[in-house]
Amino acid sequence: MMVKGIQLQLCGFVTQRWNLKPITSLSFSSLSPISYPNPNPNPSLKLLPTPRTTRFAPFRASSSLQSSGNVRSIKFCQWCGGSTKHDIPDGEEKLRAICTLCGRIAYQNPKMVVGCLIEHDNKVLLCKRNIQPSHGLWTLPAGYLEIGESALEGAVRETMEEANADVEIISPFAQLDIPLIGQTYMIFLAKLKKPHFSPGPESSECQLFSLDDIPFNSLSFSSMVVTLSLYVEDIKAGKPKFHYGTIKKRPGTSPSDIRAYTLDHHMHT
Amino acid sequence: MMVKGIQLQLCGFVTQRWNLKPITSLSFSSLSPISYPNPNPNPSLKLLPTPRTTRFAPFRASSSLQSSGNVRSIKFCQWCGGSTKHDIPDGEEKLRAICTLCGRIAYQNPKMVVGCLIEHDNKVLLCKRNIQPSHGLWTLPAGYLEIGESALEGAVRETMEEANADVEIISPFAQLDIPLIGQTYMIFLAKLKKPHFSPGPESSECQLFSLDDIPFNSLSFSSMVVTLSLYVEDIKAGKPKFHYGTIKKRPGTSPSDIRAYTLDHHMHT
Repeated sequence: MMVKGIQLQLCGFVTQRWNLKPITSLSFSSLSPISYPNPNPNPSLKLLPTPRTTRFAPFRASSSLQSSGNVRSIKFCQWCGGSTKHDIPDGEEKLRAICTLCGRIAYQNPKMVVGCLIEHDNKVLLCKRNIQPSHGLWTLPAGYLEIGESALEGAVRETMEEANADVEIISPFAQLDIPLIGQTYMIFLAKLKKPHFSPGPESSECQLFSLDDIPFNSLSFSSMVVTLSLYVEDIKAGKPKFHYGTIKKRPGTSPSDIRAYTLDHHMHT
Repeated sequence: MMVKGIQLQLCGFVTQRWNLKPITSLSFSSLSPISYPNPNPNPSLKLLPTPRTTRFAPFRASSSLQSSGNVRSIKFCQWCGGSTKHDIPDGEEKLRAICTLCGRIAYQNPKMVVGCLIEHDNKVLLCKRNIQPSHGLWTLPAGYLEIGESALEGAVRETMEEANADVEIISPFAQLDIPLIGQTYMIFLAKLKKPHFSPGPESSECQLFSLDDIPFNSLSFSSMVVTLSLYVEDIKAGKPKFHYGTIKKRPGTSPSDIRAYTLDHHMHT
């Protein structure tokens, strides 16, 4: 199952021992600007190598995902069918949907999106989405983690479903939280077991891109821009690291602007 | 909100570039055994420094969490109140609860548990649980991630709630998937902003433990045994790494035996 959308939020801090970028909330945006490849206004896939913009780049929202945290949309108990009330339970601080019949609480929690960044012959494998949202735009194979599987297993499964590619996981590459839409991306570096891939039902095309040819101007989600930007930086610096960060929607920008984000609390090995 | 339980499952592979431990499923258990501190049969908190056992150690299950993936327990649509049917939707492979009135699907996904491993004066901060399950046993401050917050923010919040400790995040330390109960732990290294802490409502006690005094025999969950074992190993080897792994329940063992697990697909920086 492909990812249905993307977006962003945040707050926080961070420090020592790792190579940590300082707080990158908007008020600190002049500190240690994180740069990403400049989106090419030319609709062709070729990305201009430089110059690079500062950190404010992609994100794309899906209305269905934006409502993932809307507790008031839960009107009935899924276990007994009773009507719910919306209240803050004793000892808690958040508004919850509580069944007026059986008393059970319908907790809502963020979802994990797992995927693979597949390296092959100094290229990476991308899929062109054959479904909405972001139909026709490029993504890494990724989708929601299912109950009963590990993040690693889920990433391998999604890659098989979307690219018919049998991969071997190399290492975790990035954990990217997108609090506003209740998603956390977990991207693994992977390699093809055999040099075969083809589009699955949710993809119209699968293609290997050299780093200079990654279609930054035609990516589906902010998470993909962040992931691929960090990867390109890492490779140019020598080798991939592990990254943690929060993708936060830049206030006042269009939900459809996948470049309107900040990467906050960025930490890497 | 504290974690309500713990457990395990898995399958997979793994390779190069990072220091990767080979496949650690049961059939490969004789390869590269992962060792953890030997649980001290003495009920005092003092842990014997050596010998160390092989990888088979903790886990503790909560019946409420074990049912987290039980799609058949979803009998009504939480949005329209219609009865559900349990079927595999077109284009999918998993059994889902589908509303017979509005057609919406109630997806169930794994939950993230976020927490802090707080370092202070060469000691770590643990909380004694004042709630079930695992009442009276020791845990890191941790709980379910909420929609609207990043993993980092959630870990900081839980630490404040359970230990009244204001912490600063140092780095990600471990991602541990527990597929059988649909949980993923994300543990961050952290430090106290001020040397103050005290038990919150869900804790009866908070205490700093030197590494040799960590109560491995009185921990609440397998995830805590894994996290603290890896941490002790890392510190003894020089410095903390970032770890990814899957905690899998060892077949045929009691659900209450928190040491009956394997750590599979273990990768670290």
